[in-house]
Amino acid sequence: MLRPTHNGDRYELTSPTAMPRAAGFLWNRRMMIQVTCRGYATAQFMQPEPAKYAHAPNLEAKTFMQPEQNYYAHHPGRFFYIKDEDSGQLFSAPYEPVRAPVDAFAFSVGKSDIAWTVEHLGVRVELTLSLPTDDVAELWSLRVTDLSGRPRRLSVYPYFPIGYMSWMNQSAEYRADLGGVVASSVAPYQKVADYFKQKDFKDKTYFLCEEAPQAWEAQQHAFEGEGGLHHPSSIQADQLSNSDARYETPTAAVQYHLALAGHASHDYRFLFGPAFDDAEIAAMRARYLSAAAFDAARRDYAAYIAEGRGCLHIETPDPELDNFVNHWLPRQVFYHGDVNRLSTDPQTRNYLQDNMGMSFIQPGVMRAAFLHALSQQEASGAMPDGILLAKGAELKYINQVPHTDHCVWLPVALKVYLDETNDYAILDEEVVGHESGIALTVSERVSSAMDWLLHARDQRGLSYIAQGDWCDPMNMVGYKGRGVSGWLTVATAYALNLWADICDRHGGSASLTESAKHFRAGAKAVNRAANEHLWDGNWYARGITDDNVAFGVSKDVEGRIWLNPQAWAILGGAAGEAQRAAMLEQVERQLATPYGVAMFAPPYSAMRDDVGRVTQKHPGSAENGAVYNHAAVFYIYSLYTIGEADRAYKLLRQMLPGPDENDYLRRGQLPVFIPNYYRGAWHQYPRTAGRSSQLFNTGTVSWAYRCFIEGLCGLQGDGDGLRIAPQLPKEWDRIKVTRTFRGATFKLSIQRSDVAETQVWSEGKRLTDCRVTGIVAGGAHALDVLIPR
Amino acid sequence: MLRPTHNGDRYELTSPTAMPRAAGFLWNRRMMIQVTCRGYATAQFMQPEPAKYAHAPNLEAKTFMQPEQNYYAHHPGRFFYIKDEDSGQLFSAPYEPVRAPVDAFAFSVGKSDIAWTVEHLGVRVELTLSLPTDDVAELWSLRVTDLSGRPRRLSVYPYFPIGYMSWMNQSAEYRADLGGVVASSVAPYQKVADYFKQKDFKDKTYFLCEEAPQAWEAQQHAFEGEGGLHHPSSIQADQLSNSDARYETPTAAVQYHLALAGHASHDYRFLFGPAFDDAEIAAMRARYLSAAAFDAARRDYAAYIAEGRGCLHIETPDPELDNFVNHWLPRQVFYHGDVNRLSTDPQTRNYLQDNMGMSFIQPGVMRAAFLHALSQQEASGAMPDGILLAKGAELKYINQVPHTDHCVWLPVALKVYLDETNDYAILDEEVVGHESGIALTVSERVSSAMDWLLHARDQRGLSYIAQGDWCDPMNMVGYKGRGVSGWLTVATAYALNLWADICDRHGGSASLTESAKHFRAGAKAVNRAANEHLWDGNWYARGITDDNVAFGVSKDVEGRIWLNPQAWAILGGAAGEAQRAAMLEQVERQLATPYGVAMFAPPYSAMRDDVGRVTQKHPGSAENGAVYNHAAVFYIYSLYTIGEADRAYKLLRQMLPGPDENDYLRRGQLPVFIPNYYRGAWHQYPRTAGRSSQLFNTGTVSWAYRCFIEGLCGLQGDGDGLRIAPQLPKEWDRIKVTRTFRGATFKLSIQRSDVAETQVWSEGKRLTDCRVTGIVAGGAHALDVLIPR
Repeated sequence: MLRPTHNGDRYELTSPTAMPRAAGFLWNRRMMIQVTCRGYATAQFMQPEPAKYAHAPNLEAKTFMQPEQNYYAHHPGRFFYIKDEDSGQLFSAPYEPVRAPVDAFAFSVGKSDIAWTVEHLGVRVELTLSLPTDDVAELWSLRVTDLSGRPRRLSVYPYFPIGYMSWMNQSAEYRADLGGVVASSVAPYQKVADYFKQKDFKDKTYFLCEEAPQAWEAQQHAFEGEGGLHHPSSIQADQLSNSDARYETPTAAVQYHLALAGHASHDYRFLFGPAFDDAEIAAMRARYLSAAAFDAARRDYAAYIAEGRGCLHIETPDPELDNFVNHWLPRQVFYHGDVNRLSTDPQTRNYLQDNMGMSFIQPGVMRAAFLHALSQQEASGAMPDGILLAKGAELKYINQVPHTDHCVWLPVALKVYLDETNDYAILDEEVVGHESGIALTVSERVSSAMDWLLHARDQRGLSYIAQGDWCDPMNMVGYKGRGVSGWLTVATAYALNLWADICDRHGGSASLTESAKHFRAGAKAVNRAANEHLWDGNWYARGITDDNVAFGVSKDVEGRIWLNPQAWAILGGAAGEAQRAAMLEQVERQLATPYGVAMFAPPYSAMRDDVGRVTQKHPGSAENGAVYNHAAVFYIYSLYTIGEADRAYKLLRQMLPGPDENDYLRRGQLPVFIPNYYRGAWHQYPRTAGRSSQLFNTGTVSWAYRCFIEGLCGLQGDGDGLRIAPQLPKEWDRIKVTRTFRGATFKLSIQRSDVAETQVWSEGKRLTDCRVTGIVAGGAHALDVLIPR
Repeated sequence: MLRPTHNGDRYELTSPTAMPRAAGFLWNRRMMIQVTCRGYATAQFMQPEPAKYAHAPNLEAKTFMQPEQNYYAHHPGRFFYIKDEDSGQLFSAPYEPVRAPVDAFAFSVGKSDIAWTVEHLGVRVELTLSLPTDDVAELWSLRVTDLSGRPRRLSVYPYFPIGYMSWMNQSAEYRADLGGVVASSVAPYQKVADYFKQKDFKDKTYFLCEEAPQAWEAQQHAFEGEGGLHHPSSIQADQLSNSDARYETPTAAVQYHLALAGHASHDYRFLFGPAFDDAEIAAMRARYLSAAAFDAARRDYAAYIAEGRGCLHIETPDPELDNFVNHWLPRQVFYHGDVNRLSTDPQTRNYLQDNMGMSFIQPGVMRAAFLHALSQQEASGAMPDGILLAKGAELKYINQVPHTDHCVWLPVALKVYLDETNDYAILDEEVVGHESGIALTVSERVSSAMDWLLHARDQRGLSYIAQGDWCDPMNMVGYKGRGVSGWLTVATAYALNLWADICDRHGGSASLTESAKHFRAGAKAVNRAANEHLWDGNWYARGITDDNVAFGVSKDVEGRIWLNPQAWAILGGAAGEAQRAAMLEQVERQLATPYGVAMFAPPYSAMRDDVGRVTQKHPGSAENGAVYNHAAVFYIYSLYTIGEADRAYKLLRQMLPGPDENDYLRRGQLPVFIPNYYRGAWHQYPRTAGRSSQLFNTGTVSWAYRCFIEGLCGLQGDGDGLRIAPQLPKEWDRIKVTRTFRGATFKLSIQRSDVAETQVWSEGKRLTDCRVTGIVAGGAHALDVLIPR
C-alpha cells in the first residue's frame, strides 16, 4: 500500500518511491531535524541563530526556512550502506543513495522517534533516530539481522555526509581517542567584530561510534571516487582508505566487518552533532553513547513530548482524523509554542498565535509569552514586527519590513487564553516596557494597541497597510503611505470587539466599562467604513492601493476574490446575514479546490506593481493563490462561529491528506503535520495542485486545534464554565470526546437524536444552558450530549 | 599520457580522471565561464553585480569567488548523453555524469575556445564552447560521428541543468516559438527598494537549439527519475517526457533521434545564457544560432583575445614555459586588465596592479584606470579600499574593512607604465576628485598619497596596519589602532623612492625636485626605523601588534618568517648586502617547497588573537602558509633587481606545473593560468601540498609578466630608451626573444659567450651602455646579446 498507515500514534509508509519527500520531524529546545523516508535530512540548531552541522556540498545561502525543499544526490542525509562480502552486492538504507529496489521497506514516524525497517539481500536493517531533550545531537541506532539463515559476511558502512563547512578552514579525520570522525571548521567572516560573535560557535561536527570501526573515510571525494554515491569506489574496495580531509569536503563514513550467524543480529549506536571542542565531544560520548543512555534519552524525550499532550481526545467515524487530532496536531501546536519555530525574532503575529495554541497545552507558557510580547510594545501602542527572544537577537528578513497588523493579534490570542483559564487577573499585571522602562498594566497596553489600530486609519476609516499586513508579500499596496488593507480593516473591528468583550467581562472598574464602550463604538465605525468602501457586491475587497484602486474585486481578472476579508468580516461583524450568504457562495464557487480553499483566485501570472511581491511568487505556490492553510483556517473558524458546521468540517478535513490513496500521493506528505500550504492554482496547473510544501512552521495549527475544540466539539471555556455546543458534520451520527479543562476531565458522548436543540445530560440531569460550572481540578465529568439530526 | 600536452597555443589533456578539476576559462566584457575537463562549469555575468544563469541545486550563497571549487553530482555543468538505440548502451560527454570509461578523450583548451573529443561505443563526440564578444551567451557546437562504419540509431541528449533559480518563482518549459527550453524566475527579495533594483534583471535562462529536437525535459526531477544522473529514468525510456517545471527545479534537456550512415556525421548548435524576456531570447537566436553566425562570433572573439596579445615572445630551452609566456600569461594579464575580474568594486591594490600589467598590452587602458583610481582619492591623500567602476556600485566584502596599503601601489604601478611608455605628461594631467570636485594634477595627488603614507606611521616611524595590509586577513594586528606592519613599512620606503625617482626624472619644476628630496629623505627615515625596530637578526619581522609584540620573528613557533617583508626590504632599500644574504638563506631554508616559496612558515595551526583571521584559515591553503603566488612573485621580482638570476628563475618556473608528470598530477591544473595559490604546509600536510586553487584571479600575473620581460629577458624601458640586461638561469645557454616596445619590434638573440659583461650588438655595432634609443613606432631592431658564461 502506498498510502501511509497509522498504528497507534505512528505513521508508516511502505514504499520509498511513492511519496519521495514524505518526512518526519523531531525537535528539542535547541534543534530540529526533518528526515525524509529516503534518508535525506535537514537539521538546524541554535547558537543562538539557526546553524547547521551537516551542510550542502557547496556554499549554501542562509535564509529563513524554505518550502518544497528540493533534494539531490549530494543533499545532506543519513545513510547506511550494506555490502554482502560474498556476493559483492550492495544496497543502502533507508534507500538513498544506492536506490536498490528493496524487498521490504517501512518508514515509521513516531511522535518521539523516526524509524525504518529495510530488507534486501536477505538482510534486515532497522534504524532509529531519536533526540536527547536538552542537547544538540542525533542518536542513531542500527540493527543488522540475517534473514537467510546462513552465516553471513557483511560490511556495514554508516555514511553521514558533512558537506562544505567553510571556505576558511575545514578538515576531518577519524579520532581514535574520541571514537569517531571529527570534522573541524572555522565559520567564515571578514569583519573583526564578527570574530567575537562567532568565536564560541560549535564549529566541529562529530560522528561517534559506540563500537570502533575497522576502517573509515573522512574525505568526501575519497569516499566516492569515480564510483559516485550510488556505488562509491571506496566501498567497491575491500576496505575504506582512512583518508583525512584537509581543506577538502569532510564526510563521515566508517566500515564494520560483520560476521553474522544465520538469523543473528548485531546492534550499533552512533551519535551525530556539533560541538565546540574535543572536551565537549568526549562529554557527549560519555553522556549518550551506550544502550542504557540511549534508553534513558528516549524515555526523557518521550516525557518531553508528553508535556505537549493535548486537551482533546476524539473518537469519530474517521480514525485517521482521530489519530491526527489526538496525537499529531497538539504535537505540532506544542512545537510552535514551546520553541517558537527555533527562531530568535519570531514575527509578532506568529509569536502571539503560536502561543495562543499553547493555551490549550501549557497555558502558563502563553501567559509568559503574552507579557513578554507586550514588554516590547512601542510607545505609540504599536507592536514591533518581531519579538526578540535571545540576547543580541535582531529583527531579520521580513521583520525589517513594516507591517500594520501586529496589534490585532493581542486580543485574539488573549481571548483563547482567558476562555481556557478564566485568568482575568492577567489584565492587571504590570508590564515594564523594555525600552521605555515604563510600567503599564496589560489592560492599558492592550487598550493602547487598540487605539493605535483606530488611529492608523485613513480619512475614510480604513486601515493603512504600509508594506504589508498578515499577507507579508503584499508589499506595494501601501508603501507610499496611502494604501489600505480590506482585511485589516475588518480584522480591526474583530480585535476591538474582542477587547471590548474582555473589558466588559473583567468589569469592576469604570474605566474598563468606558473602554468597552469606546472600542465597541470604534468597531462599529470601522465596520461602517468597510461596508461603505470595501463591499464589492458579493464580497469584500482585499484593499485599496496608494493610487486609490480597489483590488480583490469583481472586475479584477487575477486576484479577484480573497479569503481573508470574508472570514474576518464574519468574525468582526461587518457582514450582515445576506452579505455572508453571498460571500460563502462566492468562496465556494471561486476558491474551493479538492485540497482546500485557496487564499485567493485566480493567481497572479505576473507582477502587479500596485499589489507587490505576492504577485511575483509562483502561481499556486506559497502565497500566490495557494491553499494557504493559515488563511483557510481563519475561514473555517469563522464558519464555526456562524454555525456552518458542514462547510467548516469539509474544509477542516481537507487540511489533511486522504482518505483516498491518490490524495496522499498527490499531496506527497505524511499526515503528521499540517503544512503551511498545499499548492493551489488548481485550474491553471492541475498537475501540481495539492502538493504539500512539507513546511511544518505555520500559524495554522493553533487555529486548527481551536476549530476542533471549540468548533467541531464545541467545548469552549466561558467565564467560570465550559460551554457545550458541538457542531458535527451531517454525515456523522456520533462521536466520543475527552476534554481536559482547567484540570478537570470531561468525557462526552455526543450523538444525534430526535431533539430540537442540543441537550446536555450529566448524571441523569439536563443542564439547561448547556454549560458546566463548578469545575475543580481533578474533577471528572461524564456527559451525554444529544444533538438534533 | 596523463600530463597535458601543448600544441601550438592549445593545451590538451587526454584523461578525464587524472586531473579531474583541470579547467579552462573564457570571458568577455560581460561574463566569464570556467569549465572542467569533465564538463562541470561555473559561469557568471554582470548585471551589474555578478549573477548566474545556471545554478546549484540548492540556495547558493553569493560570495566572492572561492578557490578549490568542489564539484559534486548536481554541480552545474554542460553535458551530452549519447544512447545507442540498438544496444541500449549509454555514455555522456565530456565525462560526467555517466562517467563511462571512454575509449578516447581529449580536453583541448584554446585561447578563445574550449573543445573536447570523446570516443565511445563507436561514436565520436566533438564539442566546442566559444563566447560572443559583447553578449552573455555560450555558443556550443556538437558533432556526432559514427566510427563503426555501420548505420547507427542514436539518441543524443544535450543536458544543461539550470538548477535552483529562486524561492519566489521558477518554472521552465520548451518553447516551440523560441526553439528551446526557457526557464523563468523572479530573483528573490523582501524589501520594496530591492524590487526597483532588480526588476530589469535577466531572470530567464534559455537553452536554444538550432535544430528542433524530438522531445524535451524542463524539470530536473522528471529528467532524473529514480535512475539518477548517471542513468536518468527519462533516458532509459524511449522518449523524454516533455515535462515542464512549475516551482520545481528547472533543467534543459532535449532529445534528438539521430540515424547516421556509417562514418557519417551530424552537427548541432546550441545557445545557452540569460535574458530579460522573450524578445531578447528571440534576438539572441537570430543573432547567433547558425553556422555562419557561430563562425563570425568565433572570429570576432579571437580578434578580441588577440587585442590582448603580449609584448614578448621567447624561445628558450623550455618549450612549455615558452608556450605559457607567449600565449597564456599575457592572456591572463589581459583578462585582469580589461575586465577587472568582472567586479564592480575591485580592491584598490588589485585594480592598480591589474592595470599595471596592462601597461605591457594596452597602455592606454592603464592610463585611464590610473586616472580613474586617483579620482576616488580621499581628501587626506588616502586611497579608498576599492575603486567603484559601475554606477550604483558599493564597496563589498573585504572592501568594507580598512586597510592601509593602497597608496603604495600608485608609484609601483605608475613606474611600469612610465617605463613602458615614457608618457611623463600623465604627471601633469588634472584629476577631479569625484566627491570633492577639486582638480589636482596626478603629481599632486601621488605626492599627497605619499605624504599620507609618511603620516600614517607611529612614533617609531613604522606604518600602521589598521585592519590589514596587502595580507587582508591579517586583521587583528592593529585593529586597536596601534599595531604596525613590517611589510608596509619597508614597502612605504619603496613607494617613496620610486616616486622620488619619477619626480626627479620628470624634473622641470623646482617643486618636483623638492618633492624628490622630501620623499627620498622620508624613505631613508622609514628604512632607518625598519632596521631599528623590525630587523630580527636574519630577517625582518612581519609586524608589531597593538600590544607591542613583534611577530614573524625567530622566537615564533608558527608564522616565524614571512616572505613579503624580505622582498620589499630589498626593493625599498632597507636591507644592506649582509642582511640580504642572511634573508635569502633563511627564505630558502624555511620557505622553499617543491611547488614554490611559501608566503610564511610554519603555517598557523590555530587562532592567534593578535594576528587575526589569517591564522584561522586552513593551514597550507589560501593565505595561511600557502605558496601564495602574489607574494612569491614580489620576492622573485626583488631577486631580479639584485641580480639573483638563478634563484629568481627557479621560483618563477615553479609558478607553473611541470616539467615532470607527477608535478602536473599533484597540482591538478592545466598551465593555462597561474592560480592565486598552490597549497603550502609542505611539511605538515605533504599529501595536499602543491595543489592548485584553480582560481585565476590573482595580482600575481602582472608581476610575473614583468619578471619575464624586465627580469629574465632584461628588456625594460628607461626614459627614451630600452635597457637590455638579460638574466638567464645558469642552465640556459641561449634564448631568442621578440619584444614589441613603443611600437617597434626588437628581435634578440641572447647567448652565453666568453665575455666579462653583457654586450649588445646591433648591425655589427656594440651599444656601449646596453641601451637602445631613437625608437620609433614601426621600427625593427635585430640585436645580438652576449652574456657572460
